[in-house]
Amino acid sequence: MTTPPAAGFDVGGTNIRAEVIGSAALPATVTRRRIRPPSMDGIVDAICEMVGAIEDEDSHGVAAVGVGCAGLVNRSGSVATSPNIPAIRDFPLRAMLAERLGRPVAVDNDATAALRAEMACGAAAGVANALLATFGTGIGAALALDGEIRRGADGLAGEAGHMIVAPGGPECLCGRRGCWEQLASGEALGRAARDAARAGKAPALAERVGGRLADIRGEHVGELAAAGDPVARRLLSEFAGWVALGLNNLILLLSPEVVVLGGGLSELGEVLLAPVRDALEEVYLEHRQRTPVGLRVAQYGDRAGAIGAALLARDLLETPEVHSRAMRAR
Amino acid sequence: MTTPPAAGFDVGGTNIRAEVIGSAALPATVTRRRIRPPSMDGIVDAICEMVGAIEDEDSHGVAAVGVGCAGLVNRSGSVATSPNIPAIRDFPLRAMLAERLGRPVAVDNDATAALRAEMACGAAAGVANALLATFGTGIGAALALDGEIRRGADGLAGEAGHMIVAPGGPECLCGRRGCWEQLASGEALGRAARDAARAGKAPALAERVGGRLADIRGEHVGELAAAGDPVARRLLSEFAGWVALGLNNLILLLSPEVVVLGGGLSELGEVLLAPVRDALEEVYLEHRQRTPVGLRVAQYGDRAGAIGAALLARDLLETPEVHSRAMRAR
Repeated sequence: MTTPPAAGFDVGGTNIRAEVIGSAALPATVTRRRIRPPSMDGIVDAICEMVGAIEDEDSHGVAAVGVGCAGLVNRSGSVATSPNIPAIRDFPLRAMLAERLGRPVAVDNDATAALRAEMACGAAAGVANALLATFGTGIGAALALDGEIRRGADGLAGEAGHMIVAPGGPECLCGRRGCWEQLASGEALGRAARDAARAGKAPALAERVGGRLADIRGEHVGELAAAGDPVARRLLSEFAGWVALGLNNLILLLSPEVVVLGGGLSELGEVLLAPVRDALEEVYLEHRQRTPVGLRVAQYGDRAGAIGAALLARDLLETPEVHSRAMRAR
Repeated sequence: MTTPPAAGFDVGGTNIRAEVIGSAALPATVTRRRIRPPSMDGIVDAICEMVGAIEDEDSHGVAAVGVGCAGLVNRSGSVATSPNIPAIRDFPLRAMLAERLGRPVAVDNDATAALRAEMACGAAAGVANALLATFGTGIGAALALDGEIRRGADGLAGEAGHMIVAPGGPECLCGRRGCWEQLASGEALGRAARDAARAGKAPALAERVGGRLADIRGEHVGELAAAGDPVARRLLSEFAGWVALGLNNLILLLSPEVVVLGGGLSELGEVLLAPVRDALEEVYLEHRQRTPVGLRVAQYGDRAGAIGAALLARDLLETPEVHSRAMRAR
């Protein structure tokens, strides 16, 4: 019996990305669109329209829909809050989509969805104990132990970005100080670089953005560090120290075999990995008594959330009871 | 078929404690001894002697043996290092005991064993997602997600005491700075109290130990705080802030329903719980979007390690293959 196609969506601050997977182990991109989600209803409308568009293109239809969303997603698929989508507040996304689409819908945190993709056929394939951390505007994380993704009591496990690692440190949007994501997110690296440029200490970075210092982002630091700029290298090395400090905490707690770095910044690849690996070597406790932890960048980059969401939707179809219901509905 | 008795041992810095459980769900203390373990061979000898002594007293014998040991215990039951037992280094405790005793032996971290006991019939009974943290000389931790204790790739998950929560903070025995256990262990509370007493700022504490300031321990602070001493209350409140900060990190990452506080300090009960609960209310993120986390003290106190070790041994007997082997050996 072949599993019919499932569609996955990644709802972020400015885009909704879609991926469709068939029954093969490896996902195939069938469609990929970007729209701006303006409101909770707008997000639901956009996903429903995109499902319709996929069905217009593909006669196999869409048997199930998965969504990965930044923010606090509970086990019933409601999004309590989403840091980058202020319009979201107690958003029963799964229930609304299931009603509109009349088929199985899975809604999960975007990092959880990304980990599902990386475990299926990416950087954590075949790994029973894995941690994924995404470094973008904030830091998201998801964990798998003994072969399964673990979501905790509320489905909210993995909120590693708000580990406090520097009491009294920089203020966080959450109202507290010294959260890991204020020191180790892509945004934190960009901010450190903008500060350096504004102080006149980062001429190459200023030149890279044509003097528009507000445009400097973390990725620019990586780019210039790779090209050998000493200021960028120092910024990246300090940043890597904070990344490693938080990873140390997570590794000691969870003892994963593999840590996957995802999010926009992970596309820097070895430029990011090398200083993080060095810093981890310094900060990480007892590494000689443990199996070395594999530090890898996400294979699917920013596609992982949507691919993983599609896989989570397909998981629903493979639950026998849901499967037969979906089959009847077709 | 009745499961035959299992013996559990808790190997700490100065004592080996023993508990024996029968086939009932609730453990029964049959024996409880204390000896000083001087060396790795000495620990093995002492456990074997205690097993013999239990068998002399109880005609049902001991079908399996479990050991909870402070330190880094890997999945094969070897203890890599143990912070409070300097003699331990790459100690194949499980293999040595299994050879000497000729029956199934389980060796695990002491916090893991304690969590097994609290989940079976204590403060985490019936809880699928639970975290246990022990506050003694250091901080140990163990975690259960989706109904099972999770040990990670190496069996070393739960090393929460070495989360770095205050970079540049007090030096740790591990060689780094700002580890959680340097700020939030029972020993850290005792040290803060001794410092206050030495500075002449804690007259009630100094009186409590008859002027022998080096004898002040964390428990004394709790005792005097309960009696209303303002200095002890302030020390306990500051300490509770550090406990809560680390718990915040663990709760965000794991999303447990229940957090069990164990170790010597947990015997203070509500005297410790109340300020930790207050501090957690301040520091803990997004508590309104989550199911409230139950904060409880360990039900079995310092018996939990040995009881849990006995339960882990009994788990081995309930694995069908091992069970039949154990039955044949009797």
